[in-house]
Amino acid sequence: MPKWMALPILCSDPLSSVAYATDEIILVLGLGGVAWITRTPFVAAAVAVLIIIIVMSYRQTCYAYPSGGGAYAVSRANLGVAPALVAASALMIDYIMTVAVSISSGVANIASAFPGVAPHAVSITLFCIALLAVMNLRGVRESGRAFAVPTYGFIVSILVLVVWGFIKVLTGQPLQAPTADIQYRQIEQMTGLTGAILLLRAFASGCTALTGVEAISNAVPHFRAPKSRNASTTLLLMLILSVTMFGGTALLAAKSGIKLAHDNAALGLPADAVQQTVLAQLGAAISGNGTVLFYVVQIFTAAVLLMAANTAYNGFPILAGILAKDDFMPHQFARRGDRLSFSNGIVVLSIIAGLLVWFFQADVSKLIQLYILGVFLSFTLSQVGMVRHWNEELRSGTSTLGVAAINRKRLLNAVGAAATGVVLVVVLFTKFVHGAWIVCIAIPAFYILMRAIKAHYERVDAHLKPQGRSTLPSNVHAVVLVSRLHQPALNAISFARATRPSTIVALTVQTDPHESRALMEEWQEQEIPVPLVVVDSPYREISRPVIEYVSNVHRHSPRDVVAVYVPEYVVTHWWEQILHNQTALRIKTRLLFLPGVMVTSVPTQLGDGGASTALAEVAG
Amino acid sequence: MPKWMALPILCSDPLSSVAYATDEIILVLGLGGVAWITRTPFVAAAVAVLIIIIVMSYRQTCYAYPSGGGAYAVSRANLGVAPALVAASALMIDYIMTVAVSISSGVANIASAFPGVAPHAVSITLFCIALLAVMNLRGVRESGRAFAVPTYGFIVSILVLVVWGFIKVLTGQPLQAPTADIQYRQIEQMTGLTGAILLLRAFASGCTALTGVEAISNAVPHFRAPKSRNASTTLLLMLILSVTMFGGTALLAAKSGIKLAHDNAALGLPADAVQQTVLAQLGAAISGNGTVLFYVVQIFTAAVLLMAANTAYNGFPILAGILAKDDFMPHQFARRGDRLSFSNGIVVLSIIAGLLVWFFQADVSKLIQLYILGVFLSFTLSQVGMVRHWNEELRSGTSTLGVAAINRKRLLNAVGAAATGVVLVVVLFTKFVHGAWIVCIAIPAFYILMRAIKAHYERVDAHLKPQGRSTLPSNVHAVVLVSRLHQPALNAISFARATRPSTIVALTVQTDPHESRALMEEWQEQEIPVPLVVVDSPYREISRPVIEYVSNVHRHSPRDVVAVYVPEYVVTHWWEQILHNQTALRIKTRLLFLPGVMVTSVPTQLGDGGASTALAEVAG
Repeated sequence: MPKWMALPILCSDPLSSVAYATDEIILVLGLGGVAWITRTPFVAAAVAVLIIIIVMSYRQTCYAYPSGGGAYAVSRANLGVAPALVAASALMIDYIMTVAVSISSGVANIASAFPGVAPHAVSITLFCIALLAVMNLRGVRESGRAFAVPTYGFIVSILVLVVWGFIKVLTGQPLQAPTADIQYRQIEQMTGLTGAILLLRAFASGCTALTGVEAISNAVPHFRAPKSRNASTTLLLMLILSVTMFGGTALLAAKSGIKLAHDNAALGLPADAVQQTVLAQLGAAISGNGTVLFYVVQIFTAAVLLMAANTAYNGFPILAGILAKDDFMPHQFARRGDRLSFSNGIVVLSIIAGLLVWFFQADVSKLIQLYILGVFLSFTLSQVGMVRHWNEELRSGTSTLGVAAINRKRLLNAVGAAATGVVLVVVLFTKFVHGAWIVCIAIPAFYILMRAIKAHYERVDAHLKPQGRSTLPSNVHAVVLVSRLHQPALNAISFARATRPSTIVALTVQTDPHESRALMEEWQEQEIPVPLVVVDSPYREISRPVIEYVSNVHRHSPRDVVAVYVPEYVVTHWWEQILHNQTALRIKTRLLFLPGVMVTSVPTQLGDGGASTALAEVAG
Repeated sequence: MPKWMALPILCSDPLSSVAYATDEIILVLGLGGVAWITRTPFVAAAVAVLIIIIVMSYRQTCYAYPSGGGAYAVSRANLGVAPALVAASALMIDYIMTVAVSISSGVANIASAFPGVAPHAVSITLFCIALLAVMNLRGVRESGRAFAVPTYGFIVSILVLVVWGFIKVLTGQPLQAPTADIQYRQIEQMTGLTGAILLLRAFASGCTALTGVEAISNAVPHFRAPKSRNASTTLLLMLILSVTMFGGTALLAAKSGIKLAHDNAALGLPADAVQQTVLAQLGAAISGNGTVLFYVVQIFTAAVLLMAANTAYNGFPILAGILAKDDFMPHQFARRGDRLSFSNGIVVLSIIAGLLVWFFQADVSKLIQLYILGVFLSFTLSQVGMVRHWNEELRSGTSTLGVAAINRKRLLNAVGAAATGVVLVVVLFTKFVHGAWIVCIAIPAFYILMRAIKAHYERVDAHLKPQGRSTLPSNVHAVVLVSRLHQPALNAISFARATRPSTIVALTVQTDPHESRALMEEWQEQEIPVPLVVVDSPYREISRPVIEYVSNVHRHSPRDVVAVYVPEYVVTHWWEQILHNQTALRIKTRLLFLPGVMVTSVPTQLGDGGASTALAEVAG
């Protein structure tokens, strides 16, 4: 993968957060009143410094883990299983939130340009999730080119917007956002302490700009050689673009007087008014509402956010597959065969993301409270893991790097770990009551679940171990289940007889004496060479008498095996199948729990002559 | 069943409609303004006349069909299959609507007494549906006594209310409903034609008082001897109670000036105000808001409505069972064994009723639009069927009744058919745009579905007919599927060998060369006496290579049978099972579609020693 293609594929997620990060800062600062909004650039600058630290740290990961250095891999290698599982839980939540937040934000940006969309935002968001799911289920492999257009279009249009905006400011032209003149209704009195907390909260919200940084370090093996170097360069490029776009929009947002509030009433707007996103208001302030650039920015923003969501549709199933291979997730997610495992991941991801969107009514601000904690948890674990990695390199002395170089790298990762750790604590405290508590429950829950699954598979594996020598039952007793004397029953009897069992009977359950008598008469007429056993069922039950009969046979000769033959017929279409064989299915399932029993389905295919040609005529 | 017990069990549905029939009349008449509401008693009188005609007609059905004269049975016997299926569709919709309307109305009556309930009406209604479903799934058989309390309580409390109200009116005491002084905001100008249409619409709405009349004629066999006579007497009793209660409440409602509107604004009420039902307003007018009688009436009303809904939980599964026995519904609904068929009916009924409640937000007025059309469709078909029944009696001359008596009975049913037919047309035209169109789509849809199911079962039955003589395959080729060399695989090999097949191989699919090599080495070490075949799968698919191998074996010897043995392990808990055997399940399902193949599951039960005791040690 060349760098020009890696950038759009891997960076759609981190770059697209420009579309909502500034909004979140302003939403929080606005609680303190207009004066606090002017501090937006300072908060954004703090976030930008954090981005720089984290990206520089991650560049080292690209070199240290050329086979892919996701938080799970790095934690697993350096910190052990427990932290790795915490990282894995955090990452799974990240992927889910990437889908929920990105698509919700994309729809919000469309609604900023076309307000008629706003009342249907939830439905449209859910529709987009379903659309992405179907596309990924059908296996439409995104080509680099398909990704390139929205991502580069987004980058160029935002850069044009930012440059144009700065020119306007520098040439002294007015820059007025549509909300510039609006005053907040309620202005809480801010003291030193509450003000500081407000700044911390705004900073924590702004940290959404960092989501998705991990994608590149994860994908090192997909780069062209020299892989680590190219990945690292791409990260640097992403860093420059990210800081420029995010810093530029934040600065211009403050300059043009953009205001946002969770509650329309706080801005004196009617309850059903649609608040424009920061990018939409910037577009309106710089090039004018309804101009070409305004629409281009909004459409590219929505497109890049959709691409960002799509990255999770690849990442989540891969992570689930890795975890399943390590027995921490059900084996259905493990990557083997028929693409089905991948599909399971896509379906689970879509359902959870859809439920979150529905529950939070596609409200980006509310969803983001659930997003940041997981992101910084995996950052911190990954950075701490890297510090341990360098410690190990120092200790073993096998590295080709000099001690000074390792020390320098270790210092950088330690700074990264400290920074992300501090932010993690800040996020935890400032976001806890606003929704992060859900993540604080979800991560331990995921953790316990994964541990339980692992323990289960280990327990089963112990049971599965061969117990002594191979054994062979002495006799086979065949029991053919019969309800009517139709072709499937005749086939089952023939197949059972072909295995030449020690004993053979046909078994029928009597729920209606007339039917049973008719069956017995037909049996004699047709001279079926197998005895028919009729068991009575006064309560019209079918399964229990069969289970009891088979158990009895086994009790009488415990060293033998009982072979139960179930006649089934297969209809042409799968949806026709639900009209048939439900009783057979139930009996088969219950028979599996009996020891010394094997259950044979003898299918008869209806609608073609295939079944009968498979049978040889036999005299008598 | 004695009459005093039959009344509460069978009449909770028809009697409980008193709880909403008057409301519906006032809601429609109110559209014309206050003056039109005073015409409520006249509309109610017309409905009462219709009740009398229909009940008298149905009394004859009790005598003519002592084994139960539901609309489906009568139509099937006299009109043929097509009308009977239309009646069955209508009845199924009736049962669903009985649940939706009764519970919604019950909750609305509770909300009238306790306004705090109103915002949660939808959730509470859905909860009640779920509760009834669980109770009926667990098979809590309602005793007659349990039914008697709410139904007799309801009858007595309404009669007390009505009698007290009349005493107040006759003694000249004031009777003021809480809404008596409210004026409608908008009063549409009524001309002769629009006024007549309004009266027809109000009449059509009031006809909800007739729902549930069929229950008694359906249940004739459950009465004490003389069955028909007792059933007929119970019907008469029900008629008297119904007319008294419904007529009394309608008269007093008009007298006390009760007003209702779909839209709170039309009454000048705030948007979130809770409008009290007619019974609640009557209670307030007669005994006073918050008095004991007021609460007693509301609570018994809610209770009887819950009982009414419960009758559908018996009726629907029985009807579905009858239809399934005639091959018109999937056999899962047919009544045989394990109560499961009954459960399917309960689940389907609850889900559809729940969806309707959710979609129409538990709004009784909206739901009722979907109710009445089906009711009168089945009434009309049943009455026409009865006329045909008497024609047949006259023609055959086998009846013990005289010609004059038959003619008289035929006339009564003809009047009933004409009356219900006219009401059907009125309902169709006045309710069509308000929701009855949904029923006009649903009934043909049900009809087509039932026909398609019947056609399918007939086609399958033709295929199932024995084709010539019983046949016996010449040889059995055993294929044991193996992924690892664990105990289940060893068991499967032993069981397969015990059947002494003509040829036997173990088959494994190679998705990872290392794993396959390890398996082959272990195979040789353990000296497994069965050759191991390894098929390569470059795309890591499992199912397809197995299917191809088995098809090949069949192609080479088409007169033989291929027995595929699938090792499975059964874990202790059903929820653990979802972590296992998914691949085995998929392969088994696909193998069923191959001709000349039988598929054997060899289960190994983990977690107990049962499996190993079932096996005998064998030397070599």
